[in-house]
Amino acid sequence: MGHRRDLVIVKLGGSVITDKLHVKKPNSSAINRLAEEMGSAFKQGVKLIIVHGGGSYGHPYAAKYELQKGYVHEGQLLGFAETRLAMEELNRMVVEALLRHGLPSIAVQPSACIVAENGEIKHFFTSPIETLLKIDCVPVLYGDVVVDLEKGFTVISGDKIISYLALHLGAKRVVFGCDVDGIYTSNPRFNSQAELIRKLKLDEAIRMLKCGVFEQRVIDVTGGMKAKLLEAIKMVSSGCEVLIVNAMKPDRLRRAVLGEEVIGTRIIQ
Amino acid sequence: MGHRRDLVIVKLGGSVITDKLHVKKPNSSAINRLAEEMGSAFKQGVKLIIVHGGGSYGHPYAAKYELQKGYVHEGQLLGFAETRLAMEELNRMVVEALLRHGLPSIAVQPSACIVAENGEIKHFFTSPIETLLKIDCVPVLYGDVVVDLEKGFTVISGDKIISYLALHLGAKRVVFGCDVDGIYTSNPRFNSQAELIRKLKLDEAIRMLKCGVFEQRVIDVTGGMKAKLLEAIKMVSSGCEVLIVNAMKPDRLRRAVLGEEVIGTRIIQ
Repeated sequence: MGHRRDLVIVKLGGSVITDKLHVKKPNSSAINRLAEEMGSAFKQGVKLIIVHGGGSYGHPYAAKYELQKGYVHEGQLLGFAETRLAMEELNRMVVEALLRHGLPSIAVQPSACIVAENGEIKHFFTSPIETLLKIDCVPVLYGDVVVDLEKGFTVISGDKIISYLALHLGAKRVVFGCDVDGIYTSNPRFNSQAELIRKLKLDEAIRMLKCGVFEQRVIDVTGGMKAKLLEAIKMVSSGCEVLIVNAMKPDRLRRAVLGEEVIGTRIIQ
Repeated sequence: MGHRRDLVIVKLGGSVITDKLHVKKPNSSAINRLAEEMGSAFKQGVKLIIVHGGGSYGHPYAAKYELQKGYVHEGQLLGFAETRLAMEELNRMVVEALLRHGLPSIAVQPSACIVAENGEIKHFFTSPIETLLKIDCVPVLYGDVVVDLEKGFTVISGDKIISYLALHLGAKRVVFGCDVDGIYTSNPRFNSQAELIRKLKLDEAIRMLKCGVFEQRVIDVTGGMKAKLLEAIKMVSSGCEVLIVNAMKPDRLRRAVLGEEVIGTRIIQ
């Protein structure tokens, strides 16, 4: 056991593995295809952690019960429980798909090992994850509602979990699987001149965030890309490779995980 | 939040909430009735942690893949994953039943917060559980396959989890809900003279364990009672009340949780 070398952390975006337009509707064919791609990468000897988003299993519930506000009234407690159950339902589908493709994938419930403070990860008991990696298992985490020392509870995104793990476990590479090809010069939905940025240097990424390009040019509809870039900057600064690729397109995620040439945005130092 | 006082830890035995004769067969009516009883106790202001066993969701898998041996060969890794999925399936039923009866119950995956060493709990990150209790939620744990620093992985029983939590969180009372009335002077299935021991003093319990009465008189078919008594001795020694009651009989578990007079075995100092 433990012969695998480079740790790669993969994000399966909620907008990829679910249909965001319908509450609790999975994108089963995408889940199955991505599980197959991960199975293929795993067979090549990569050490993997998989983190997935909530998509239509997380956001509608979190919004309905206003979980991001923290604990305001008692009625939210059942909402906290209901949101978690929905996330576990999605997580089970992902884990089962990964198992079908031969990955010894073990769910790791974020709310059982993370304590937040004011919406940020304060304590993260990573020892079970590290030991799972040692015995060649694939820990599978997800965005979750976790307890918060100040707010009672809070939502911790998959992206924040990835950033924490990449820094603390020394990941070689982080791959964000999204529903777009990467970061563009402007929003390709509104501007035919929009170009995919293949390499984004750290100082340029910081400049983009500072000048508010994400707000002004509407290049980031859900705010997800801005949040990703914020986490990416931390990771790249500490020497981790970060890629954003389109996981809706076959084989891109697999290639990115294995470090092969792939269409996407690479954030570099 | 946090107005509840005495912490009571309740075990829902695997032989109560599942049909042990058939793989993955829940005892849905028992689960629902016990959820109702816990809902009633919770409304009286008790601070609750619920821990359940695996029954026919855990033991057949753990035996099939010889998980108790630890990591011997790679084929066990998928067995580790499969056992965990079965346990989560049962856990989901328990959590959903508790939610239906108004308890803000939140699953806490033991393998995400426990690291074992040679089959015993070595590290247990209890901070999420403590914070859940502060915001009046009900953490729900279960016997699970967890990583083990020496053996790769191991099975940690619900009883061991209860013992650890009772000692570290200072539980006032622990109630084991089983499928028998308590500890008998001999096996009531074979001996009509068998009497239920209503009060068992600590030194007598230790003597019973030492003299091998559990082996000789066949008063403990599965070995579960002996293991329970071993954990009970630790807890009672540190000042916690321990009761063993028959959770197959209506209202006994509820009465025991609330500290009311009830048929069962009370282990005392």
